Amino acid sequence: MTNDPEQLIEMAGRTCYKSEDGITSDSARKFVAKIAKRGHFSVIEHAVMTVRFICDRGVTHELVRHRLCSFSQESTRYCNYSKQKFGGGQLTFIIPPWVDLEPGEYHELGPNPLKEGDADWFRAMSYAEECYLRLIDLGWSPQQARSVLPNSLKTEIVTTANFREWEHIFQLRCASAAHPQMREMMIPLASECKEKWPSVFAAVEL
Amino acid sequence: MTNDPEQLIEMAGRTCYKSEDGITSDSARKFVAKIAKRGHFSVIEHAVMTVRFICDRGVTHELVRHRLCSFSQESTRYCNYSKQKFGGGQLTFIIPPWVDLEPGEYHELGPNPLKEGDADWFRAMSYAEECYLRLIDLGWSPQQARSVLPNSLKTEIVTTANFREWEHIFQLRCASAAHPQMREMMIPLASECKEKWPSVFAAVEL
Amino acid sequence: MTNDPEQLIEMAGRTCYKSEDGITSDSARKFVAKIAKRGHFSVIEHAVMTVRFICDRGVTHELVRHRLCSFSQESTRYCNYSKQKFGGGQLTFIIPPWVDLEPGEYHELGPNPLKEGDADWFRAMSYAEECYLRLIDLGWSPQQARSVLPNSLKTEIVTTANFREWEHIFQLRCASAAHPQMREMMIPLASECKEKWPSVFAAVEL
Amino acid sequence: MTNDPEQLIEMAGRTCYKSEDGITSDSARKFVAKIAKRGHFSVIEHAVMTVRFICDRGVTHELVRHRLCSFSQESTRYCNYSKQKFGGGQLTFIIPPWVDLEPGEYHELGPNPLKEGDADWFRAMSYAEECYLRLIDLGWSPQQARSVLPNSLKTEIVTTANFREWEHIFQLRCASAAHPQMREMMIPLASECKEKWPSVFAAVEL
Repeated sequence: MTNDPEQLIEMAGRTCYKSEDGITSDSARKFVAKIAKRGHFSVIEHAVMTVRFICDRGVTHELVRHRLCSFSQESTRYCNYSKQKFGGGQLTFIIPPWVDLEPGEYHELGPNPLKEGDADWFRAMSYAEECYLRLIDLGWSPQQARSVLPNSLKTEIVTTANFREWEHIFQLRCASAAHPQMREMMIPLASECKEKWPSVFAAVEL
Repeated sequence: MTNDPEQLIEMAGRTCYKSEDGITSDSARKFVAKIAKRGHFSVIEHAVMTVRFICDRGVTHELVRHRLCSFSQESTRYCNYSKQKFGGGQLTFIIPPWVDLEPGEYHELGPNPLKEGDADWFRAMSYAEECYLRLIDLGWSPQQARSVLPNSLKTEIVTTANFREWEHIFQLRCASAAHPQMREMMIPLASECKEKWPSVFAAVEL
Repeated sequence: MTNDPEQLIEMAGRTCYKSEDGITSDSARKFVAKIAKRGHFSVIEHAVMTVRFICDRGVTHELVRHRLCSFSQESTRYCNYSKQKFGGGQLTFIIPPWVDLEPGEYHELGPNPLKEGDADWFRAMSYAEECYLRLIDLGWSPQQARSVLPNSLKTEIVTTANFREWEHIFQLRCASAAHPQMREMMIPLASECKEKWPSVFAAVEL
Repeated sequence: MTNDPEQLIEMAGRTCYKSEDGITSDSARKFVAKIAKRGHFSVIEHAVMTVRFICDRGVTHELVRHRLCSFSQESTRYCNYSKQKFGGGQLTFIIPPWVDLEPGEYHELGPNPLKEGDADWFRAMSYAEECYLRLIDLGWSPQQARSVLPNSLKTEIVTTANFREWEHIFQLRCASAAHPQMREMMIPLASECKEKWPSVFAAVEL
């Protein structure tokens, strides 16, 4: 990410007023906080942060609607999940926070059976995996076989956005109206940003 | 969409040169073709088209990466597919073009069994539907139950973009490297646009 | 502009909920007003309006900072204001609202002399015009001679934006903190939009 | 700017294919060059550069048309050039490259008179300065008095854009069809970028 984002924002912001002579060793934070409070958000765009999210494809279908970001996402067209490199015939799914299952556990036959619902989710994943692998075996390409893959499929997405856009994303995606898995992902990031750069992210409520 | 898009583009383009006195009853098409050939694409942005696509969510996850469009998409968070209104306990899936199955057919037990592969795809859909409906029954909300829904789920997306962006979309999404279902959807649209407004879309190869 | 913008927005918005069966002959305005009040602004993007502004280049240098618009502007590189077609050796300037001068008047030697200040502005325009025309005479190209042209030079700019962006522009550019000439231009337009589509523009205060 | 932009682009790009195991100490440059050659430009967006330009307002009126940049520009509304801080009653103008005048020189009465044309440009600047200062004296605010300021007025603009956008800017703004003062500013920057990151900027011809 941008080195010294508050310094960069101050330098850019003071260009508007040609007030660079007001820069001191500790003026940046105060300047940025004042700018943000007044709603002069355009100056905040000069600072940029890149984040790698690991989440499910239900979440990324929402995330990529943020049109001011740059995204590079794991491709279900180019990745062949039957190959050793990608797990060797085993797909990875993201366990939703409301499902009581630990990663790596295979409860089906175990002594602690899953709750109803959780078991249905688990079986849906198993069956989707089974179908995907059989379709690849039968000669379907990954971009064809992906048809059967569910929203819970694990994906990775590298996301670059400026601080103004991150602030906007946090406002929308940490709110109680957001999808629980989006919130699960965004709240810790927003929290870290608030702590590091309160001048920029103070208005985000968590 | 924009009424008389070529006239609007000509009017806007001639503003740059203040050459409005060159407008005649049939000058628009020639003017726009010339502008496009020279690569002055910004003028083409003034014309806009809105399209409703009905496709699967694998395709829309790609489509929404076009950041200059405005999208309104059927929401798997807000729609409860177990309700009568949405099909009454029956979900809708998009049959991929490489699957030999007619809409509405239920081949499983019939006299003309599906090909292997096609049958796997069909069973994957049936099982996802079954799991989704059971999860709703068990009290999961639609935004939770969607976890098990596959890429082939039918969705609708209203897409507004300007002609410059549509031209760019057609260039990328009709090409042989694009996903077959994206091409299936975009080529007929691009073809219609080329026919109606060759001045703008002539460079799109189908 | 978009025909029936409220109908288009309703159609797009109801796609999200698949609630198209709620459409009646007079449901659009209420639906859009509700959507806007809840802050679901993305749906409002489907409606688009194109406007031709005639103003000075000080105003357009601000206007073109709105990055979601499409602009086609009269070019000081391509227009040669010494030519008959562009005024025949006479440039056009925009009289600021605080200058007490009627278009077409030439007060310099007349019986009603201009106020101080107003006269200085007038002389600045006259001298800039004189220098521009002499430079063209001496062989400078229009894109060189434009160096001496002032902010008050008249320009035309065709601007296309969606309703969400127009709402945002009106919020910023009609406010008391905006430049007086920007407000002079935007307030009548915003006022007309509020009257025609209160469902979309109600929140703009004039 | 982004630290190690080629490494960041490689890391993002390999996420798409989950080919991170191909990363070696010297793989980044080759990977990025290959990606750029194939036209997969979206990956290049993750790297960002901020530049401060000092130029005239004719150039910035063109520059700010690049809608994917973030800009912070010296404001003629907020800066009062009659104040000591801003030059103390002396404005700064950018001498066009075709005017034979050294910064700081005042040739008017000197032994080496300016060429015709150059002298006209010089007198236009002097007169604009004189009018601006008088208007401020008469009580006009800076945002009113700026009306008389010419395109050659010096300005500063802090510009942040990603590498994809910079590449696009260089393609347009270094070309022979661009304004000579835009080229004067962009060519040295593009040249430096080509030298530092040939993998990204190789296609820019200077």
